[in-house]
Amino acid sequence: MSEYTLDCFAQSGNAYKAALMLNLCGADWSPTQVDFFNGETRTPEFRSVNIMGEAPVLHHGDLTLTQSGVILDYLAERFGRFGWNDSTERREIMRWILWDNHKLTSYTGTYRFLNFLAKSGDPAVLEFLRGRAELAWGVLNSHLADREFAVLDRPTIADISMCGYLYFADEIGVDWKADYPGIQAWLDRLSGFDGWKHPYDLMPGHPLPGNS
Amino acid sequence: MSEYTLDCFAQSGNAYKAALMLNLCGADWSPTQVDFFNGETRTPEFRSVNIMGEAPVLHHGDLTLTQSGVILDYLAERFGRFGWNDSTERREIMRWILWDNHKLTSYTGTYRFLNFLAKSGDPAVLEFLRGRAELAWGVLNSHLADREFAVLDRPTIADISMCGYLYFADEIGVDWKADYPGIQAWLDRLSGFDGWKHPYDLMPGHPLPGNS
Repeated sequence: MSEYTLDCFAQSGNAYKAALMLNLCGADWSPTQVDFFNGETRTPEFRSVNIMGEAPVLHHGDLTLTQSGVILDYLAERFGRFGWNDSTERREIMRWILWDNHKLTSYTGTYRFLNFLAKSGDPAVLEFLRGRAELAWGVLNSHLADREFAVLDRPTIADISMCGYLYFADEIGVDWKADYPGIQAWLDRLSGFDGWKHPYDLMPGHPLPGNS
Repeated sequence: MSEYTLDCFAQSGNAYKAALMLNLCGADWSPTQVDFFNGETRTPEFRSVNIMGEAPVLHHGDLTLTQSGVILDYLAERFGRFGWNDSTERREIMRWILWDNHKLTSYTGTYRFLNFLAKSGDPAVLEFLRGRAELAWGVLNSHLADREFAVLDRPTIADISMCGYLYFADEIGVDWKADYPGIQAWLDRLSGFDGWKHPYDLMPGHPLPGNS
């Protein structure tokens, strides 16, 4: 049995944040597939573990952690990697993780879910979400114009959080290189690290039946 | 001159989180109005302070902090109030602040902005945002069914964060008492604390011209 177990599924960028961190740290970990597309996160059993009804869930010994930002924080302390040296660094990392949750992942992930996975969004809703996502991509691209990583001169959990959905460029329908070159260059830097894998190579459940 | 200055505006629940924390802690603080409705947060001057283009911004000596969750974290450490005693408590507080940013504030604030303040949302977009907000209200209401505060047996910055938009019930168009009684009871507990004020009594800019 692995030291860490992650309840996750391949299509979840939020789960990917935790899975990528574990892999970059060389953790002894294994994934357990959450059957999201058949409603597992809405079941009473799942809600008893996480009332928020969301993956990922990390199990480490007696500890159960949810919310990707919390899991990243925990693993940064455990492994002494991708973290901070002082409170100023910690808060700047937290700042970008909060913005990721509020603006970047929120709109990008929801847009891609409705448009590509569920194929169910009203056109006006898709347009709204896409517009908000593009605003967030613009902010991140500007921020990355003159720096290698989001917060420090080394990668941190803020980078690992923000890249969560961005390797799904084809499913989102965006050309980072053409339209957001700062984002493309940054994604390339991250994917060059030992232990990096694409979400579909790191977590179970891809391809979806009928969506291969 | 006050020790703390908060760039904010009365209609912003995110700014309210910081303003309420300052007031509950008895800080020596004063608000500076951000002219959000005339585009101030989109100007190059504002973006040079916060590339995310968002209020609130806290100024304390040479320090400038953005993102309400970061400001709450900073003030909890400064004042030794509404914070944590150990890493487990800190992560559980962070968990709810992240969820607030991703789900509760994100959908509630955006729905109320488009529906009540901007009066510009496409009906399908409003329905989508309202539906997502109601899911978040359901999670919070269930969570509060058997506890006084969100994380500990005392109020923390997680409570202060999550209540940010919820005192605007009339503008959102929701009856907490009838439909989410756990939320109403919790809001009443928070509003009973010394220093509590409604957003419109704590920050400048209310009423809006033509929206009184």
